[in-house]
Amino acid sequence: MDLQLKGKVAVVTGASKGIGLAIAEAFGRGGVGVIAGSRSMGVSTGWVTEAHEVADLAVIVASPLAGNITGPSSRSTAAPGRDIVTSRRPDCRSGPGPALRGRAMTASYETIGTRLDGSVLSATFDAPPINLIGPEVVRDLVGLLEQLSHPDSARVVVFESADPDFFFPHVDMTKVPEYTAEAAKAGGPGDASLGMLFRRLSLTPAVTIAKLRGRARGAGSEFLLACDMRFASWENAVLGQPEVGIGAPPGAGALQHLTRLLGRGRALEAVLTSADFDAELAERYGWINRALPDAELDGFVAGVARRVGAFPRDALIAAKAAINAISLPPVADVRADAALFQQLVRGTTVQQRTAALFEHGFQTRSRTELDLGAALDDLNTVG
Amino acid sequence: MDLQLKGKVAVVTGASKGIGLAIAEAFGRGGVGVIAGSRSMGVSTGWVTEAHEVADLAVIVASPLAGNITGPSSRSTAAPGRDIVTSRRPDCRSGPGPALRGRAMTASYETIGTRLDGSVLSATFDAPPINLIGPEVVRDLVGLLEQLSHPDSARVVVFESADPDFFFPHVDMTKVPEYTAEAAKAGGPGDASLGMLFRRLSLTPAVTIAKLRGRARGAGSEFLLACDMRFASWENAVLGQPEVGIGAPPGAGALQHLTRLLGRGRALEAVLTSADFDAELAERYGWINRALPDAELDGFVAGVARRVGAFPRDALIAAKAAINAISLPPVADVRADAALFQQLVRGTTVQQRTAALFEHGFQTRSRTELDLGAALDDLNTVG
Amino acid sequence: MDLQLKGKVAVVTGASKGIGLAIAEAFGRGGVGVIAGSRSMGVSTGWVTEAHEVADLAVIVASPLAGNITGPSSRSTAAPGRDIVTSRRPDCRSGPGPALRGRAMTASYETIGTRLDGSVLSATFDAPPINLIGPEVVRDLVGLLEQLSHPDSARVVVFESADPDFFFPHVDMTKVPEYTAEAAKAGGPGDASLGMLFRRLSLTPAVTIAKLRGRARGAGSEFLLACDMRFASWENAVLGQPEVGIGAPPGAGALQHLTRLLGRGRALEAVLTSADFDAELAERYGWINRALPDAELDGFVAGVARRVGAFPRDALIAAKAAINAISLPPVADVRADAALFQQLVRGTTVQQRTAALFEHGFQTRSRTELDLGAALDDLNTVG
Repeated sequence: MDLQLKGKVAVVTGASKGIGLAIAEAFGRGGVGVIAGSRSMGVSTGWVTEAHEVADLAVIVASPLAGNITGPSSRSTAAPGRDIVTSRRPDCRSGPGPALRGRAMTASYETIGTRLDGSVLSATFDAPPINLIGPEVVRDLVGLLEQLSHPDSARVVVFESADPDFFFPHVDMTKVPEYTAEAAKAGGPGDASLGMLFRRLSLTPAVTIAKLRGRARGAGSEFLLACDMRFASWENAVLGQPEVGIGAPPGAGALQHLTRLLGRGRALEAVLTSADFDAELAERYGWINRALPDAELDGFVAGVARRVGAFPRDALIAAKAAINAISLPPVADVRADAALFQQLVRGTTVQQRTAALFEHGFQTRSRTELDLGAALDDLNTVG
Repeated sequence: MDLQLKGKVAVVTGASKGIGLAIAEAFGRGGVGVIAGSRSMGVSTGWVTEAHEVADLAVIVASPLAGNITGPSSRSTAAPGRDIVTSRRPDCRSGPGPALRGRAMTASYETIGTRLDGSVLSATFDAPPINLIGPEVVRDLVGLLEQLSHPDSARVVVFESADPDFFFPHVDMTKVPEYTAEAAKAGGPGDASLGMLFRRLSLTPAVTIAKLRGRARGAGSEFLLACDMRFASWENAVLGQPEVGIGAPPGAGALQHLTRLLGRGRALEAVLTSADFDAELAERYGWINRALPDAELDGFVAGVARRVGAFPRDALIAAKAAINAISLPPVADVRADAALFQQLVRGTTVQQRTAALFEHGFQTRSRTELDLGAALDDLNTVG
Repeated sequence: MDLQLKGKVAVVTGASKGIGLAIAEAFGRGGVGVIAGSRSMGVSTGWVTEAHEVADLAVIVASPLAGNITGPSSRSTAAPGRDIVTSRRPDCRSGPGPALRGRAMTASYETIGTRLDGSVLSATFDAPPINLIGPEVVRDLVGLLEQLSHPDSARVVVFESADPDFFFPHVDMTKVPEYTAEAAKAGGPGDASLGMLFRRLSLTPAVTIAKLRGRARGAGSEFLLACDMRFASWENAVLGQPEVGIGAPPGAGALQHLTRLLGRGRALEAVLTSADFDAELAERYGWINRALPDAELDGFVAGVARRVGAFPRDALIAAKAAINAISLPPVADVRADAALFQQLVRGTTVQQRTAALFEHGFQTRSRTELDLGAALDDLNTVG
């Protein structure tokens, strides 16, 4: 157990799994130092019974087993009845402090345009010619996630695309090793995959909202699934997981998220047919939160972002952590899906089928990319 | 292991978790004595392979590990081919016996009006001025749950509100310790929370149906989520979890239920935005079973209640127990959510924000309560 | 650990649970020999990190713990960068080989008409007078599942009914022991139930699509729930679980599937009310994938089947296995549900209520069967 007492510290017991672990992780990612403890072989960890704040130094979220923890908690003098987390910002309703404004205004990404308005950060993907997820986009996503992990960063991020046709068409199939190497920079051993990077996105303390116009297929759809909310243009949005039609199961979260969101039958349909879903069907199946008329989409999303961005940050972090603890897939399964994809994508089946697609404009603004769902059918008949 | 052989007894093996545990609990709450056994460290408990009835004395639901159990099961002479549970009522289709009619007619609650019609109990919340969930309502709920736990009690309960504007607006924020103390009377140590009381409601052998008109926010929505079915007036129903907007995550089940019912994205939207949901959107997201035209709501719910109330009680109990075993959250997580809420609600953020709401008519029949979703936005801008 | 090296072999480590287990099972059912390994008491099995193909002999899907496995994997010379599974078919896009065509054309079932078109098998249930699920249907289903388990069998199966009124009305209540004995032939000890047979159906490597016209109630609905996708005629489809109204919880998967697909509230409604659901409501609740206008149903399903049938088989198998690993119920719970049903169905409550139904045309093309949902209400009032 690593004990560090610098700035604010949260002592979380029962942190080996479940909500205890989630709280510990969320506080940690929110910029609070965390001391995590758990009992060795217990049955019901995660039962939080006491929480105290100790001056400006520490907060203790303690189970009855707190005695098991050695370290500063034993020196704490509890002062119940105060906030579980008091950030060092003087006024929690006045938006981010100068530190963030400075950092956000100067932070600059090649493929992501950013703009900060109060506590809401707009992030617009702009990777011409068609917003493929390649090494540059992944490098910039890693940087943005690092930025969001700072405690005074934006409370809400709205993701959108600068390309009206494509949110993210899918990964750049010619640069799988390169973008995977960039994704690896976000985490530890075993994290070298888009799936683990997207899982980090799901765990960021900021609230993430995706605004979808155009096509989001493959890892593009999986990016959306990793966000906290997804709102799409009724007239102009397409979601799809074309991977099986190309020769491999999806590898960056779709299997996990779609099965939990859509249920077994509809997830099997989405994944096995590799078909395009319009916004109406995607909403009906639960792939997105809602489809909205295109003319209303911007105003609706801006309203949600502004509202959530003005709510107390600690409540947002704790609520998101609790919901994540119930709904996010186990790390081992995310890694397994990624490993299988990374292997199959090098295989002859995928290589042959993508080669056939490249002969018809794959990865360009072509009919093949615009109507990839139909193109996979052609691939079958042409062979 | 506690062995008691009075009246009918169910011997349930493999009862340490999963469906075995659920069956044991359901029979126990249904008024049947239960002898529960489990093997110490096994992998697949819960595999039921044999069930016998022993005269009018006992029923055995046994796994291959029944040999591990000491007690009356070894003395049993099995007589397969009969009912797994035969209640002591002479005719299972003639409704509740005189015992229940007597008890139900005399049972009297200050804030809940009750009326028994056959095997269906109508329970109408009536706690002026606006049906806040305070100590009186919680005390009466504890009493009603105790009444429902008797084996000859009503098979179905329909909950509604006497106030056309408010089903339950939320808890009385000035009496959190008082209503928590009342809730504590329903259970054992660790059960001093609305979350654990509502979990008891989910486990009651009676089938619980909520008929929603007016607003059900916060713990009011969480009460509905703990019921077995929820039907709402299309024109006149509002659901919401305003807690995050006030400064704490929901603490009485919403995090658990909404995540499982709505999926990660929509649960995050409902909880993080603290917005009001009308019946149409609540149905689309799965928060309620169905929205029905107001003019049809009473007839529809009465029909469902009458139908279910005439079905064999043992089948209802066993089916509900099995579905509960799959869908109810772990006790540890319910307790953790409650502990976090109880702590944060005492903190400065919640205290400041509720104080601001009280200045604008909070907890009265005011615009603030009628449109609480909008009032939270005003709170942000006014500060 | 059982090591067999005949034909293609998959060495799967971390196969004790989760996706590792699912991959091992899927390859096994897909006709690939499997060598499965797992570490004894580890926390995070299932983390696949390497996969190699070794000539035409073996494929290795290995975790970091591969060293724990004794056997041929240590003799393997890895050759990364090739397909994880290469079936013995020379061209994976040319449909099934002569072996399947021969077998499928000659396979003949008394109650299931089959027709093979490319890689798509049409299976039409035809068990006059009303398609009851009795010993003959179960025997033929066992045979068809055996046929589908061969590696060169059809990639997609479309199930439909020859009877416009009834897909499957329910089981033959006069022949429960007989059809259970037939179901037992599909599996090992503990598998003597429709529930376990239907679970085998869910695990078959073929993609299973149900096309619903007419009534599918009880085990008929549970058959549909075990399929991978369900599409129904908007005008002419009825689903229901009448078991509780008859006196027992559903026993062949409905409790498990409906709770996961519909959520707690709607699953309780479907199961406890025993009501008939039309296609529109069944779609809204998630019981089926989609309701389609009757005139479009055949074309739509044929299109899905043809499309999926032309996709790479290995990708279909791996994706389905991963989704199954997340969504299928534990075997112990399937067995528990079946055991409870098999016991209760012999009890006096069920016997009395079915006797009353038989007096009104139960199990014939009568109003009782056509409108069973309403007939259960009559049963209550007539007593």
